[in-house]
Amino acid sequence: MRRVRRHRVVRLTGDGATTARGDVLAGEEAMEIRVDGTPWTVTMRTPGDDFDLALGLLVSEGAIWRNDQVAAVRYGAGVEADGRRSYNVVEVRLAPGASGLDATHTRHVYTSSACGICGVSSLEAISRDPHVTTDDPRLPVSELLAMTERLRAEQSLFAGTGGVHAAGLFELDDAGRAQPVCVREDVGRHNAVDKVVGWALRERGLPLRRAALQVSGRASYELVQKARMAGIAILAAVSAPSSLAVDLAQEAGMTLVGFSRGDGANVYAGAHRIVT
Amino acid sequence: MRRVRRHRVVRLTGDGATTARGDVLAGEEAMEIRVDGTPWTVTMRTPGDDFDLALGLLVSEGAIWRNDQVAAVRYGAGVEADGRRSYNVVEVRLAPGASGLDATHTRHVYTSSACGICGVSSLEAISRDPHVTTDDPRLPVSELLAMTERLRAEQSLFAGTGGVHAAGLFELDDAGRAQPVCVREDVGRHNAVDKVVGWALRERGLPLRRAALQVSGRASYELVQKARMAGIAILAAVSAPSSLAVDLAQEAGMTLVGFSRGDGANVYAGAHRIVT
Repeated sequence: MRRVRRHRVVRLTGDGATTARGDVLAGEEAMEIRVDGTPWTVTMRTPGDDFDLALGLLVSEGAIWRNDQVAAVRYGAGVEADGRRSYNVVEVRLAPGASGLDATHTRHVYTSSACGICGVSSLEAISRDPHVTTDDPRLPVSELLAMTERLRAEQSLFAGTGGVHAAGLFELDDAGRAQPVCVREDVGRHNAVDKVVGWALRERGLPLRRAALQVSGRASYELVQKARMAGIAILAAVSAPSSLAVDLAQEAGMTLVGFSRGDGANVYAGAHRIVT
Repeated sequence: MRRVRRHRVVRLTGDGATTARGDVLAGEEAMEIRVDGTPWTVTMRTPGDDFDLALGLLVSEGAIWRNDQVAAVRYGAGVEADGRRSYNVVEVRLAPGASGLDATHTRHVYTSSACGICGVSSLEAISRDPHVTTDDPRLPVSELLAMTERLRAEQSLFAGTGGVHAAGLFELDDAGRAQPVCVREDVGRHNAVDKVVGWALRERGLPLRRAALQVSGRASYELVQKARMAGIAILAAVSAPSSLAVDLAQEAGMTLVGFSRGDGANVYAGAHRIVT
């Protein structure tokens, strides 16, 4: 259960010099999620905020959308080979009457650290309809452009390892300033978003109001879908979106921003929400 | 079936200026793979080299390891809504007696563009034993460090979109020079590696000899596993490896290099193969 791990590496340089030195690795461990006693999925993730990761994944899959649909979340009773308690199994108990998981979700699949919606059994099922209506905030350009740097300022793990992705939830305060209220880092960029969404489900309720999501890497189809399921209208990425990400954002009436850096940004969909 | 697509974006800059302009998006479409008539997986990918993607995924999962285990690969007979032939279904027919897919693989799962080994049903099954023995090449430091730039020089898609990952297979020629023999780009970094491995299965046979794999991003657990299944002993990444990637490389006796750029690199495992 370690977010980082030290490792001895051999540093090579172009002049042929070889030195041994310490390096910090981003932690990556497999985590199994069980829902109501049934194994649901296995995901590779950086340990930490594991309950939020489980909840966020359930929101992304359309299984839950209100915190009161969750009766309990806890680590499993298992132990590791060395006898220590296992923190790599998370058990979620849904409230009676909660939507739960339909038949296409009851499988036990492996999810890589880079994958958000594995286990969906058909193309039709990939793009689930959200249970919440998306909010319709306006975000000043200057605040949009500032979000990248504000996210980076909160990335403690990245500073050490260089190997993780980050997602930050920003809320507009009454002065119109975009404030980071939840920042998560993970070897998997989908996990970072799931952890943010799980936090938001607990702490804010969905859909999020006057909120925007900033991610450190590309904007994939899956990230747009995750934002949509949480009712987040504005998704900004530091790097490029894919064609399918743009298609989904347009279809869902969301705002999708790419190449968002301090000096400028490209708006691929929903430009009306970014105001000057 | 497009590798790139043009899209009209609104360009915002810090001074409040707003301009409309064209942008090029990396193509991303869902592709279904059927094996012997049964739906096996759905993956999000950048169209192109689809047959190699299917073959590479089958190698990664341990289902095939020789080209003669494949009887045929072709696009499906389906048509799109507009009546054009669908290039988003690939049908693989395995040779009689080929290993094929065991029960844990016959599910129909959705695989994101960032995910390589979805559909494996348990943690034990994630790390399959390779059917081929890994080669044991030596790679001069200078050639290792040159691989990053040589890969970038071949990245035609990235130059346009900024939104794709690349994987390049390098072979050492008789003069000890690492030559790129197959470079693939995709919105999903696992896809890029799968496409390279599929090409190698057909064009070179596995395990690869005197070969190294250079990838543009991070070295995840899954990429190490994919290289291992193809018998590639040396994996170099431009960015950081995760802790689990290092664990697997050590266990498999592979060489894992991270932060490999023109001026230096960190060797996380198997440093003996990098020679000065």
